[in-house]
Amino acid sequence: MKIILAQQNYHIGNFDQNTAKIIEAIENAKQEGADLIVFSELCICGYPPRDFLEFNDFIERCYLAIDKIRTHADHIGVLVGSPSRNPKVEGKDLFNSAWLLYDQKIQDVVHKTLLPTYDVFDENRYFEASDDWHVMNFKGKKLAVTICEDIWNLGDNPLYRICPMDRLMAFQPDIMINLSASPFDYTHVEDRKAIIKANVKKYRLPVLYCNTVGSQTEIIFDGGSMAFDSSGNLIAEAAYFEEDWLSVNVNEDGTFQEAILKPNEEIPDQECTPLNYSPDLNIKEIHDAIILGIRDYFKKMGFSQAILGSSGGIDSAVTLALACKAIGAENVRAVLMPSQYSTSHSVQDAEQLSKTLANPYDIITIQSIYDSFMLQLQPIYKDLPFSLAEENIQARVRGNLLMAIANKFGLILLNTTNKSECATGYGTLYGDMAGGIAVLGDVYKMQVYALAKYINREKEIIPQNILDKAPSAELRPNQKDSDSLPDYRILDALLYQYIERRQGPSEIIEMGFDSNLVERTLKMVNASEYKRNQFCPIIRVSPKAFGVGRRLPIVAKYLG
Amino acid sequence: MKIILAQQNYHIGNFDQNTAKIIEAIENAKQEGADLIVFSELCICGYPPRDFLEFNDFIERCYLAIDKIRTHADHIGVLVGSPSRNPKVEGKDLFNSAWLLYDQKIQDVVHKTLLPTYDVFDENRYFEASDDWHVMNFKGKKLAVTICEDIWNLGDNPLYRICPMDRLMAFQPDIMINLSASPFDYTHVEDRKAIIKANVKKYRLPVLYCNTVGSQTEIIFDGGSMAFDSSGNLIAEAAYFEEDWLSVNVNEDGTFQEAILKPNEEIPDQECTPLNYSPDLNIKEIHDAIILGIRDYFKKMGFSQAILGSSGGIDSAVTLALACKAIGAENVRAVLMPSQYSTSHSVQDAEQLSKTLANPYDIITIQSIYDSFMLQLQPIYKDLPFSLAEENIQARVRGNLLMAIANKFGLILLNTTNKSECATGYGTLYGDMAGGIAVLGDVYKMQVYALAKYINREKEIIPQNILDKAPSAELRPNQKDSDSLPDYRILDALLYQYIERRQGPSEIIEMGFDSNLVERTLKMVNASEYKRNQFCPIIRVSPKAFGVGRRLPIVAKYLG
Repeated sequence: MKIILAQQNYHIGNFDQNTAKIIEAIENAKQEGADLIVFSELCICGYPPRDFLEFNDFIERCYLAIDKIRTHADHIGVLVGSPSRNPKVEGKDLFNSAWLLYDQKIQDVVHKTLLPTYDVFDENRYFEASDDWHVMNFKGKKLAVTICEDIWNLGDNPLYRICPMDRLMAFQPDIMINLSASPFDYTHVEDRKAIIKANVKKYRLPVLYCNTVGSQTEIIFDGGSMAFDSSGNLIAEAAYFEEDWLSVNVNEDGTFQEAILKPNEEIPDQECTPLNYSPDLNIKEIHDAIILGIRDYFKKMGFSQAILGSSGGIDSAVTLALACKAIGAENVRAVLMPSQYSTSHSVQDAEQLSKTLANPYDIITIQSIYDSFMLQLQPIYKDLPFSLAEENIQARVRGNLLMAIANKFGLILLNTTNKSECATGYGTLYGDMAGGIAVLGDVYKMQVYALAKYINREKEIIPQNILDKAPSAELRPNQKDSDSLPDYRILDALLYQYIERRQGPSEIIEMGFDSNLVERTLKMVNASEYKRNQFCPIIRVSPKAFGVGRRLPIVAKYLG
Repeated sequence: MKIILAQQNYHIGNFDQNTAKIIEAIENAKQEGADLIVFSELCICGYPPRDFLEFNDFIERCYLAIDKIRTHADHIGVLVGSPSRNPKVEGKDLFNSAWLLYDQKIQDVVHKTLLPTYDVFDENRYFEASDDWHVMNFKGKKLAVTICEDIWNLGDNPLYRICPMDRLMAFQPDIMINLSASPFDYTHVEDRKAIIKANVKKYRLPVLYCNTVGSQTEIIFDGGSMAFDSSGNLIAEAAYFEEDWLSVNVNEDGTFQEAILKPNEEIPDQECTPLNYSPDLNIKEIHDAIILGIRDYFKKMGFSQAILGSSGGIDSAVTLALACKAIGAENVRAVLMPSQYSTSHSVQDAEQLSKTLANPYDIITIQSIYDSFMLQLQPIYKDLPFSLAEENIQARVRGNLLMAIANKFGLILLNTTNKSECATGYGTLYGDMAGGIAVLGDVYKMQVYALAKYINREKEIIPQNILDKAPSAELRPNQKDSDSLPDYRILDALLYQYIERRQGPSEIIEMGFDSNLVERTLKMVNASEYKRNQFCPIIRVSPKAFGVGRRLPIVAKYLG
């Protein structure tokens, strides 16, 4: 039996485009003489559709798309993911389902059992869990079809009480097929392979795993669809961070006709989140994920050009380099906005960077606008000393200028804030926190340096001077980040324990961090929740990014 | 048996304050000779604690608080709500529980079964549902203790498959006690009473219902704790929108010694969300909810003073009047920021309003700052015609000025955007969309007028001219909202169908709305998701507010 896994990039709610893409793949698969083609979880509507699922109209369009695709599923079997209505009154209205189309008919539908409801996932908000398990019969084979999370509980995953594959084994299936929408994060590059391997080991069945690819606002799906034979050999593996297509032939005995990519190798069972912060870990994957994140954000929003403030600092330099790579240097407009507090090398470094990247840039000084603000505020400010308020005015003048150019020419403002700043609230709302998407908002400062080194791995794109100088916001004379923040190496490691690993103050202090520093830092994080609440979406590369996957109350008083 | 319901206002994560409050009530209840005192759902940590629940340290503090309260529960029984750890490996780590403390011991713990996971609720994210039902034995009585949502499924609530009270009836309980954290919205003022009544009718038991009160960022809990006897008579009802205390005596036969407040009255079974928009519905309750929302936001954030832009329009006028009532006129600083496009009556009306309210105000003209922006942008803008970009610059200059004063003097900026603007994206990010909390963000434009009339019910506080003139942003000569938006009466009614009732385009057109208008409006709503994503928290008064309870993908293409 020839089976194809179609690893595609969908656009949420764009039924015309998604359906056309699926139909094109079906037609190509027919040309290849495939028996079955498999698509990813909720491919019909794109994942995650969120509250669109609450609109009857949206569900209706899913059904219409299925109906259209069905007519193409003549001599080929088609497995697609789409919501289905729950016929029972009790429970949620929908299931998250896999539909088997064949002979131009809906042959069978199975539902997802394990509904992730943590971090960025809200599936219990919409879906009822399956309580009816059966295999799908197709061309004399019994397919154990599951959806994403369903294969992540092998009896030791403490989140769930049911193991769907255990139920399906009662029907003696011939092959496991999983439709996924499994997002990337840099800590589990090998996790997915490990869990699939563990399934093979437990059930002694070949596994075909079809993942989606592409970025949906903040969430990156990295692809990497794969096929394992029942002995645990990796037979085929699709590309990461791009669309791809796997074609495999399954023999009668469950072996594959294809060459073994990787013979039954040991894949270490990783901790989901490593115990300690290491800024260089999987930096290539982080780089590739961000590139995809930027590219898809623009494509799916219908924009082609970006703008950003280029300060001569490391964050804007890395953001600029990534943006140029993602959407083309000619489409990224950098604006240098020095003030009286900017050092001359800042402008030089920023200019040098844009010359190397060959992206357009402008220089606008902000002094005169700042002065006009101060003049109007004089009757209110009177003789009060220079404070954070004046620093914020400068940052907001820059934000206003960037938005003014963005609005005039239809550009999207890229935000350059890094995760360390975002965590501690070291940024100005409506100033440097403005933007359509935050490129580095899930990347700690030391990881930004690692990214810069990775970008410079073959030739110097980011001027070495930018990597060498001490970080500064340049909002008052001789300002350094280290005036207000601890050393980033210590700060990042501490934040990692609190954000990624959800350790409390006493646990972090036990690791050897200074207790005053811990108290002060956790207080900064919790007290700046109101700022992050108004922040733009952040391209997610870690297991715990700020944004939709981390939900904290604002008017709280905990560790603050 | 004398039972007290303590309707209190908690602060999330503020264990010291919450514990002290609970202990004080216990001591007062002892003075009154009570047998049992009942508190609300998750009162120990405040509701909703959100992802703080993922911190072991946070849960540890809940246990420590219980341990402290336990020592005060000597000759009085105490029922408190707090998370408890799930001893089983399978399933989520926590239960949402009610703890019975008595004789200085933990006597019993029961867990919540129905975990709301919709709108603003995320309980499945944190909690495992109970699968073990029993009554609590206390002083010879069998108490059927449930938590909030548990009593909302009487077999016909299509969200759930279990009816917890049906299970508890097997133990022949004497009395029902429910610990709640049930939020306000203007469409179900009577809903709660109706559902409790329906429970009484079905189970023929007296019901004691203890709700929390107070605002947690965006969610308003309105109190209204109550007691029904087994015949359906309302015996006692606590205040709404404030802390209160109910003390009742239950006789051996389940009747109460107290007077009947309302004899077995028919409470109509309401539609959760009325079919049609009516801007005057329950406007007093909306008013009271917003006042509480503002007051608690300041109190719980540790701030006492506010600032807002006062334009002479209806939205800022109503916001200002509400803020003055909530935190005192002397604590609300209005800033009038006319430009060359402002009409003279705007400033007059705004001044008149502040004179009536007796709140401080400043006037700052923005022309010179705007000019300094245009001068710096000239090399980039060149001779391009005046457009939305220039309008946005003005709005952002105002935002910057307000934040500059707020930052200098430690004030919180109140946002004045209404729900109709918020829905259609008729506002400038970082400009008039700036602020710490949106006072009217869940109130459609016609409801804002209704609020203005309510505020003026006894004397003219908001100048009649502000109610009479056509709405305008005054960002270009002779601008009117009606240049870009349909008549608010039609727009609001249309938005209500899409937002509150989740009707799709064809369903809305069938109701008689113009099909072009429907298409254009839904497109505006969906296309401005990225703006709302960066908007501040909105005080929630409707069954579907923008913000945490409405989750839409940004890079989607649905009806857009």
